[in-house]
Amino acid sequence: AVSALSPLSRAAMAEGPEPKRRREEEKEAEEEKAGAEAAPGTAEPFPLRSVRLRRLLRDSAREKAAFVHGRVVGASGEEADAVLILEKTPFREEQIEALLREHTGLQLQAANDIYSTYRLYPPPRLSEIKTTVVYPATEKHLQKYLRQEVHLIRETWEDYQNITLPFIQSQSFSIQWVYNILEKKAEADRIIHENPDPCDGFVLVPDFKWNQNQLEDLYLIALIQRRDVKSLRDITAEHLPLLRNILQEGKEAIAKRFGVPGSRLRIYLHYQPSYYHLHVHFTALGYEAPGSSVERAHLLEDVIDNVAQDPAHYQRRALTFALRADEPLLQKFQEAGRV
Amino acid sequence: AVSALSPLSRAAMAEGPEPKRRREEEKEAEEEKAGAEAAPGTAEPFPLRSVRLRRLLRDSAREKAAFVHGRVVGASGEEADAVLILEKTPFREEQIEALLREHTGLQLQAANDIYSTYRLYPPPRLSEIKTTVVYPATEKHLQKYLRQEVHLIRETWEDYQNITLPFIQSQSFSIQWVYNILEKKAEADRIIHENPDPCDGFVLVPDFKWNQNQLEDLYLIALIQRRDVKSLRDITAEHLPLLRNILQEGKEAIAKRFGVPGSRLRIYLHYQPSYYHLHVHFTALGYEAPGSSVERAHLLEDVIDNVAQDPAHYQRRALTFALRADEPLLQKFQEAGRV
Repeated sequence: AVSALSPLSRAAMAEGPEPKRRREEEKEAEEEKAGAEAAPGTAEPFPLRSVRLRRLLRDSAREKAAFVHGRVVGASGEEADAVLILEKTPFREEQIEALLREHTGLQLQAANDIYSTYRLYPPPRLSEIKTTVVYPATEKHLQKYLRQEVHLIRETWEDYQNITLPFIQSQSFSIQWVYNILEKKAEADRIIHENPDPCDGFVLVPDFKWNQNQLEDLYLIALIQRRDVKSLRDITAEHLPLLRNILQEGKEAIAKRFGVPGSRLRIYLHYQPSYYHLHVHFTALGYEAPGSSVERAHLLEDVIDNVAQDPAHYQRRALTFALRADEPLLQKFQEAGRV
Repeated sequence: AVSALSPLSRAAMAEGPEPKRRREEEKEAEEEKAGAEAAPGTAEPFPLRSVRLRRLLRDSAREKAAFVHGRVVGASGEEADAVLILEKTPFREEQIEALLREHTGLQLQAANDIYSTYRLYPPPRLSEIKTTVVYPATEKHLQKYLRQEVHLIRETWEDYQNITLPFIQSQSFSIQWVYNILEKKAEADRIIHENPDPCDGFVLVPDFKWNQNQLEDLYLIALIQRRDVKSLRDITAEHLPLLRNILQEGKEAIAKRFGVPGSRLRIYLHYQPSYYHLHVHFTALGYEAPGSSVERAHLLEDVIDNVAQDPAHYQRRALTFALRADEPLLQKFQEAGRV
């Protein structure tokens, strides 16, 4: 399937915490994608050769991607902004032999004992670059793709009560899409497992980031049935049966449906989460999922042990998380003199 | 500088925990590299066009890299094994404009509203593939690059005493290179900061993975002066002054030398570590350093809080880590029926 937006969001996520309400954005992207698939090639081709480059917004040496701000003369004769996203494409197994045979040049760089390195110049047809254009782009688009500084916050329980909680409450994020899943008004056919208990139950669904075509990047989400637990900060010993159900039944359901045993799964919560209805991430251990790093992820088994030992662990202890410079919550911490 | 091996080790690390004693391997690689730089281009070019491909050992869609097993007819007329590592190269800012102007083809894939995606086919000279050859390759090389299953272990304190500790002791890993640094017999010129206290002191040095050319992938290591703390499992309240010194002085030294404030650093320990002399990692927060994911990294501030609350935390609690299928410690856990 043609995927117009997902690689961008993945690349963007490599740089720091996910933007809030990312799942909703992805749903929008899915819808946009469906539209794009219905009528590909109908738009006027973008005048790529005449773009004037303004600046490199961000690049990822690891992922071989670049985000560029450019300007083009639009239909009205006025200059307008565009964002260009270039990403080299993964190797395709069936093309590797051709790459070796049909290269247009090979330069030895260094050789030592059994090791040698070369620069290989492939023919154009074996060397595709995925190019995405956002045009016309607004200032908001430019900001979205600009590399943002990331700051680490060490949030005490007092910080949570005085800064984070009032901020969450003031935002009134919509989590209607979660309720739609729990009430079977949406995605009912995607449910992998359900425990219907209103207190200790949950629903397990594939995450939108996973296309289910391969197990390498397996990604599922458990959404709890009860609606009064926003995040890790609300968890107490009262929730131990729920958490243990998610751990046990989630592993069993994934082993049964996908054949992936629990020992090959990373099972964790985010803090801060993308949305404030408690949920648990299940990802393939071999997949470096965005948001699985130590400053954001909390292993479910550690959470269970923490609360079993001290029921008020998450109302007592400091928690670390990262915020991008453009996130409003960072401003709240700065105003409070806590950064 | 030409780097013959480091990209490989980085790509390899994306797949799971680092192989043990990786730093020593890197030192060897550095030495090999120095040799390669001294005499580049002296070896016979490898007959790339005549390689017969046997299998794809591993690929990374995220990093645009592929590890391939091939065979070639050697000088003696006998077939011999080779490992080929192909990796697309990052975009270079100064070439992006040329890429847009001089592409050899542009295919619209999808368009919707302000978004459109294209396949762009660049001219060969703007489309380099870094190609590394290991030839002749042994079975050990093939195994090294083969994708390995990764298993999660939940190690109780009893597991540590009965399985992990005896294994560590039986291996008698050499950590002479650590002692050489502490005694100023090696790398004395690389020391960024030193607290010479034999009990609560440490030495801060740049990690070998960081070339110090840019701050994006800043990576330093604090090595403790005392020699009786192998890992997180040995830490008790006795070590709190040491850990607090590392946190405080490490941040100050990095801010002073590199201008990177503490709020932009990820400061953590590994469990399992690569070598059993306690050390702390300092990496740039914006850099997704290998080994910074939740199943391996433990934030130093969390470690301090854990031990401050319960001096025996790390002699009481279960710890999670991942092991590759070829690691001997996994076999020990399997023999004990713990996997």
